[in-house]
Formats: sequence, structure tokens, C-alpha cells
Amino acid sequence: MSTVSTWTVSGMTCGHCVASVSEEIAEIEGVSDVSVVLETGTVTVTSAGPLERDDVAAAVSEAGYVLT
Amino acid sequence: MSTVSTWTVSGMTCGHCVASVSEEIAEIEGVSDVSVVLETGTVTVTSAGPLERDDVAAAVSEAGYVLT
Repeated sequence: MSTVSTWTVSGMTCGHCVASVSEEIAEIEGVSDVSVVLETGTVTVTSAGPLERDDVAAAVSEAGYVLT
Repeated sequence: MSTVSTWTVSGMTCGHCVASVSEEIAEIEGVSDVSVVLETGTVTVTSAGPLERDDVAAAVSEAGYVLT
């Protein structure tokens, strides 16, 4: 069983930004997959269980972007 | 003695882009300093002698951007 959640991140402008956000979110415990659509800022995360918004926000912030 | 030259690079959107371009240009033989203004795409390069445009263009291309 896994949980798929969708988030929106603002401020990403290029593939490097996507990579930074993906890497930080991938480090959250239980996360098995991260998919980002740069144009919309949509981040789809697959995890072992539901994620805390605070954890996702912290990861996004660590990468230098903002969870909206 | 050193040479300072100014170039314009298109496509950079964030600090990661700036870092990529700077790193590639810094690898050109004789280059001692690279300064980038993201907003304008202006790249100022300090080198031991005059640079060949082809060498700068190749470095910029390697980073994934275009010398204009």
C-alpha cells in the first residue's frame, strides 16, 4: 500500500530547481517517488503513508522554494 | 596582465543556471574569474589572455544555455 499526494511549489524555473525540490522531498521518510511538472509547480509524491504538510514544506524550503 | 571580456548568455532563469554556466566557463584554460548577472544574462570573464568565442560558446552550450 502507498499514498499518493499532490502539492504545489512556487518559484521553480528550470530543471535544476526541479532536481533540488525532488531531492529534498525524496529524503522525507517513507517517500518512494517524486514527480514534478515544472510548468505548473505540481509535485506528486508517493509515500508509504500520509505525509505531514509541515514535513513537505520544510523539504521544499530547504531546497529554496515555497510550498503553496 | 589579464583580459576582461563580456558575453551574453540566454536561457538562465535561476541561481542554479548561473552556477552551471560559471562552472563551465571557469574550466576554460586561462580563466581566473567569472561573474554573472542573471537578470541581464551578462557574463564577465577575466582571463590570462583573449578568449576565443568558440571556446566560450562551447562552455555555455555544455551547461545547457546559449551564447548570443
